[in-house]
Amino acid sequence: MVEPANTANIKPHPYPLLKDELDIVIPTIRNLDFLEMWRPFFQPYHLIIVQDGDPSKIIKVPEGFDYELYNRNDINRILGPKASCISFKDSACRCFGYMVSRKKYIFTIDDDCFVAQDPSGKPVNALEQHIKNILSPSTPHFFNTLYDPFREGADFVRGYPFSMREGVPTAVSHGLWLNIPDYDAPTQLVKPRERNTRYVDAVMTIPKGTLFPMCGMNLTFDRELIGPAMYFGLMGDGQPIGRYDDMWAGWCVKVICDHLGLGVKTGLPYIFHSKASNPFVNLKKEYKGIFWQEDIIPFFQNVSLPKDCTTVQKCYIELSKQVKAKLGEIDPYFNKLSDAMVTWIEAWDDLNPVGASGQVNGKV
Amino acid sequence: MVEPANTANIKPHPYPLLKDELDIVIPTIRNLDFLEMWRPFFQPYHLIIVQDGDPSKIIKVPEGFDYELYNRNDINRILGPKASCISFKDSACRCFGYMVSRKKYIFTIDDDCFVAQDPSGKPVNALEQHIKNILSPSTPHFFNTLYDPFREGADFVRGYPFSMREGVPTAVSHGLWLNIPDYDAPTQLVKPRERNTRYVDAVMTIPKGTLFPMCGMNLTFDRELIGPAMYFGLMGDGQPIGRYDDMWAGWCVKVICDHLGLGVKTGLPYIFHSKASNPFVNLKKEYKGIFWQEDIIPFFQNVSLPKDCTTVQKCYIELSKQVKAKLGEIDPYFNKLSDAMVTWIEAWDDLNPVGASGQVNGKV
Repeated sequence: MVEPANTANIKPHPYPLLKDELDIVIPTIRNLDFLEMWRPFFQPYHLIIVQDGDPSKIIKVPEGFDYELYNRNDINRILGPKASCISFKDSACRCFGYMVSRKKYIFTIDDDCFVAQDPSGKPVNALEQHIKNILSPSTPHFFNTLYDPFREGADFVRGYPFSMREGVPTAVSHGLWLNIPDYDAPTQLVKPRERNTRYVDAVMTIPKGTLFPMCGMNLTFDRELIGPAMYFGLMGDGQPIGRYDDMWAGWCVKVICDHLGLGVKTGLPYIFHSKASNPFVNLKKEYKGIFWQEDIIPFFQNVSLPKDCTTVQKCYIELSKQVKAKLGEIDPYFNKLSDAMVTWIEAWDDLNPVGASGQVNGKV
Repeated sequence: MVEPANTANIKPHPYPLLKDELDIVIPTIRNLDFLEMWRPFFQPYHLIIVQDGDPSKIIKVPEGFDYELYNRNDINRILGPKASCISFKDSACRCFGYMVSRKKYIFTIDDDCFVAQDPSGKPVNALEQHIKNILSPSTPHFFNTLYDPFREGADFVRGYPFSMREGVPTAVSHGLWLNIPDYDAPTQLVKPRERNTRYVDAVMTIPKGTLFPMCGMNLTFDRELIGPAMYFGLMGDGQPIGRYDDMWAGWCVKVICDHLGLGVKTGLPYIFHSKASNPFVNLKKEYKGIFWQEDIIPFFQNVSLPKDCTTVQKCYIELSKQVKAKLGEIDPYFNKLSDAMVTWIEAWDDLNPVGASGQVNGKV
């Protein structure tokens, strides 16, 4: 049996990153009571809340948190016609928060995620572990059998080439979930009672050339290194598909990280995921994606970006062209998505002009 | 603090594999007292002991074990001139045991490895876990963030393409080490007191296209699927290099598995590794390898096997040619190694004729 942790007696304490280095992005449609449990870990940081759905609804945020909140009216006002690239009635809207942040790092979490316990019963400070992951290098060019060689008590094993031990900068830290695993609708339907109780005490780099299913529930990334590729696509209202927002971002991010020599880590930290979403609703959202991903995955496995794509923006625009050329045949949706990818980059650059303070605009 | 387990009160019990399906191969130069601790787990199986060094020395095996023992005189007698491909005064000699086995599966373990404890204090039946790993499919074409989807309580996560969920046959199960980690001489010298105390409760597939440092200390493989590629090279007496025997096998095995559509898993089970070898002696053995691997790794990362290489033997002979052509420039040793690779395959085929009972001779 897995249970969330009790954090009532933990006081907010200093972090390896300062408030002006990291923002926490939370998409939501409801009062953010879940923040009470995260108070000791999140209160030292600034929150960017992206309110989805009805903008007239008032979202309550517990006292003591420093936050800014954007609803659909704000998004439309700030982006104008380019707001079309931000999904509505889908948590994909969270990527608007990535765009308006001015910090180097983003941590994003769903509002049904609570503090997990490690096997000793200690509450897991997910944010602290993400920061550790992202501040240490990745090793995408060769597999280390003892997992992340930069963790305390670990190192590179015999046979690991010395020239590769410097590693590469880490752009993404992908955390996992105890209790309700992140399953698709068919698996939810088949295994309604399955809970994830296995705490795997590992962080690892996903090797170069290997794609992975990136979940947006518990995720940290470096905006300066990869931000413009963290677009969560067109989902929800008016779109033929849902629940592929983070997957889409993950595929794009991974091929661009591989191209630019950046690393992606997965594993710790765990959050406690409280509630499975409705599998019937999910099936409706996923239905087309289940078919489409059979073509999308080979497409991304074979994407090749030209050498002159030296910034995330250039890579992403090139990717948008290839999406139109090669996935447009599957469904007209991909032409629309390709256009939205371009709009996203235009909007990103509008809000993040080159040379702006604290922002290197994705240049590597 | 990590300690080995107490197995005194465990009775040998049935396994998912029968005695006629698996052999345990142990290279050694001393009495096999370490088997006492493994008795409940190993006694149901047959042991192939490969005695290294002075063949006149008598190796004692604890009572009750079913075994055959080969010393250097036996190897020379059985292989004749082809015995030149089997290393002397190096644990690389263990691969002779792979050749003379008639079983489908091989488990190989070093004689300084004891039974580990899991975090609950339960003795780890390493063999049982290896068997579970190798009897379930691998998933080399896409990364599953919840690790081996075939383990109890786990599955494929959202976004894992359904067409890839059948997986591929698993050819290799690579186990890990608590207490003394498998470090190279420089790391041993720099971190003499480092012990591995982290029990990571995970098994995972090493993705296609990714090389890994395969350690021969705690390893299981399917002879029928990959046996002829499990050659541990020319090490020890008369050779310029040591401690790269398992690494060499691992690089060859991985590129051939990738080519033939077979899987390699790593992670559980742990053994308790009791004693670090002498780092000064190790440095002498590794010295050239530390330089050479900087060229060898890119070579293996770029190896391409032609389509008509449809058996392990054909792949291995092709690889031997590429070794001579591309690594021969580094040092004449690689020409000798290339020739030994061919001799190994000839000897393998002599001892394992096609159509022999219980043997499909590497055909896939």
